[in-house]
Amino acid sequence: MSNIDDRLTEIGIVLPDPFPPVAYYLACSRLGDALYVGGHGPFDGTRAVIGKVGTDLTLEQGREAARLTALSMLATMRAELGDLDRVRRIVKVFGMVNVGPGFDNTPAVVDGCSDVLVDIFGDAGRHTRTAIGVAALPFGIAVEIELIAEVG
Amino acid sequence: MSNIDDRLTEIGIVLPDPFPPVAYYLACSRLGDALYVGGHGPFDGTRAVIGKVGTDLTLEQGREAARLTALSMLATMRAELGDLDRVRRIVKVFGMVNVGPGFDNTPAVVDGCSDVLVDIFGDAGRHTRTAIGVAALPFGIAVEIELIAEVG
Amino acid sequence: MSNIDDRLTEIGIVLPDPFPPVAYYLACSRLGDALYVGGHGPFDGTRAVIGKVGTDLTLEQGREAARLTALSMLATMRAELGDLDRVRRIVKVFGMVNVGPGFDNTPAVVDGCSDVLVDIFGDAGRHTRTAIGVAALPFGIAVEIELIAEVG
Repeated sequence: MSNIDDRLTEIGIVLPDPFPPVAYYLACSRLGDALYVGGHGPFDGTRAVIGKVGTDLTLEQGREAARLTALSMLATMRAELGDLDRVRRIVKVFGMVNVGPGFDNTPAVVDGCSDVLVDIFGDAGRHTRTAIGVAALPFGIAVEIELIAEVG
Repeated sequence: MSNIDDRLTEIGIVLPDPFPPVAYYLACSRLGDALYVGGHGPFDGTRAVIGKVGTDLTLEQGREAARLTALSMLATMRAELGDLDRVRRIVKVFGMVNVGPGFDNTPAVVDGCSDVLVDIFGDAGRHTRTAIGVAALPFGIAVEIELIAEVG
Repeated sequence: MSNIDDRLTEIGIVLPDPFPPVAYYLACSRLGDALYVGGHGPFDGTRAVIGKVGTDLTLEQGREAARLTALSMLATMRAELGDLDRVRRIVKVFGMVNVGPGFDNTPAVVDGCSDVLVDIFGDAGRHTRTAIGVAALPFGIAVEIELIAEVG
């Protein structure tokens, strides 16, 4: 049985269905040991978190959106790899926050993603990171995040 | 003869001259099998597409700018590799759209890049992707795109 | 003795202390020969450069902030690698400038980073690059930059 699936159960996380591939592009793409997971948003299978953090949404809502985005990325990775135990490490996270005027605590928002990755993978979930505020995200989603994982 | 050059001829695409290197930085850079193509803009050799999508430019003009940007990246890749047949796969595209207030259909803009890559390379052109809206791009260009390709 | 340390001395550069790791994430992360240095800001060990380029800060101040950011990244790399001579090449730089309305000369800002990398590493410091303007950066810092280096 999968150790990571056990861990997900232990901490009460149920991954959503993988977000369906749109048009010509892929939810993730592999090059050697690197798995590139493209931009994902805060979808939990039925709803998306829409709005600008700092105006439409609170910091806490933004952080929860980043957490949902992490779970959506993990759903994509499990669909690609068959088993999340094949993830050796999370290498890098690039977080983009849809910000309202004056909001710049983007690290605290992206922590919603980083924290759950470490909660699931332990030390192997620790990663280097960039967290910026952007002018617009697709369809007004609150955050968009991409990552690079080392996979076996 | 190059298969990809044949394909370009078949679909009526003439690549522009590679955008000349500026200052100290490189149009692309290789690490192992990965070719990193840095930020390119919508230059066709003589003109650049300038303006914010949603205010100065329509969605369709933005999409065409993304297509031009793809061709500029391919010109860089051909100059680097000698032959586009050495491209095994397009792995990842990162698209940045210069957006006016309220415009958030960034995926439809970046499709102008993604679609032409798939048109040229077929399945090997399919990639993972991020498409965001940013506050400013160099000299007001409408889009800036970078990519990672696996090369042989 | 280290060649790069000699070079730093020769051109009068003293690297700051590495920026202390925050929360769960890492200042940099390695995958094979690639060292991913996550987003760094313009900290010189005691102060940060805060503000939007084009309104709060001049182009020249933005460029100096980018130079400080490069030195902060190098401090991280030296702490990770033990010796900057293990850097084979700087592969890619991704520069994000905190821009005020109407400012779009982001390449000239990020030159502050690129120029010092080439000054230190010579041809091995030349890299491909993207330079964008963003709506917000963590805590209002003027620039945030990440890079990929090939390391031995």
